[in-house]
Amino acid sequence: MANHDALPLVVLTEQFAKLPGIGMKSAARLAYHVMSMPAQEVEAFAQALLNARQTVHFCQCCENLTDQKFCPICEDDSRDHSLICVVETPKDISAFERTGEYQGVYHVLHGLISPLKNILPDDLKIRSLIQRVREGNIREVIMATNPTVEGDATAAYISQLLKPLGVTVSRLAFGLPVGGALEYADEVTLFKALENRNQM
Amino acid sequence: MANHDALPLVVLTEQFAKLPGIGMKSAARLAYHVMSMPAQEVEAFAQALLNARQTVHFCQCCENLTDQKFCPICEDDSRDHSLICVVETPKDISAFERTGEYQGVYHVLHGLISPLKNILPDDLKIRSLIQRVREGNIREVIMATNPTVEGDATAAYISQLLKPLGVTVSRLAFGLPVGGALEYADEVTLFKALENRNQM
Repeated sequence: MANHDALPLVVLTEQFAKLPGIGMKSAARLAYHVMSMPAQEVEAFAQALLNARQTVHFCQCCENLTDQKFCPICEDDSRDHSLICVVETPKDISAFERTGEYQGVYHVLHGLISPLKNILPDDLKIRSLIQRVREGNIREVIMATNPTVEGDATAAYISQLLKPLGVTVSRLAFGLPVGGALEYADEVTLFKALENRNQM
Repeated sequence: MANHDALPLVVLTEQFAKLPGIGMKSAARLAYHVMSMPAQEVEAFAQALLNARQTVHFCQCCENLTDQKFCPICEDDSRDHSLICVVETPKDISAFERTGEYQGVYHVLHGLISPLKNILPDDLKIRSLIQRVREGNIREVIMATNPTVEGDATAAYISQLLKPLGVTVSRLAFGLPVGGALEYADEVTLFKALENRNQM
């Protein structure tokens, strides 16, 4: 925005531009849009921002985001609390829940180990995971981080910490995506699919 | 977001999703991002929203957005106040200002006539434009709406209202974009470039 723009608009544009994936042009468009919204809706938006930030925090058990002491999944007695699926972000939980197949509980790391980005193990919610396993009654921990260098490294690191505690540690299967075509599969995926082939 | 998500997060996601160009997935990503922002920054964001909506309004002369009575361009005595450039949105002003060549003033319509979208002349800031021209001292009005069906129709409509007032009404030139290649020009643009050819 240029110096002929109203200052409050410039400030709002800069706030929007701080959000991930929103550049200066989109931010200006959003700021102009706010001008055309009813004042009541803008107030509801501002209130939603403050509310979410103030009342949502980490579940005391699995570190998922919740506005209660424990998240609904940890509170759910019908789920298998001896099976923990370790994910990077709360969004990953939604992906698993959409399958409707997983009946265990979760643990959210809130990141992956990445020395290049200066994210070390202590910056993640690893300690509370170890604590959960140590407190007992955990049968298996599934490492469900992304199949990337950082995801693999984080899974390997946590696995080394968990194994001495006598718990089964597993990793998601890698292979051809269902519905995908062989000719479009990359070499690494194809190699993994070969390596992990199952008897028919 | 699914029903295992914290309610304040769902509410915030819905608010983000109301913004133009932001779908449910992006909205969820933005809402999660807000969770990781320092509480102070979230408060600044909410305050910027309220501030902008409450203090910014239309310039009493040109209908541009401003937090003063008149916008900086209308207040600038060094500009040519007898030349008005009529644009659709405040963003268009920024585009003209970036050229650094235009020394006149502006008038913002805040939309284009579009019977299909139920936007009629009375929904735009046309009356205040007529009033400005009627008050006199206006030499020329440049119609700078987009070269679309709606932009052309709006320019033609306003032109018909202005001409009886004895003011020169002009339209932006259409032709090949500078730096563009002939082979990539569409037929209509090329036709316009031929039609409006200039003697060398």
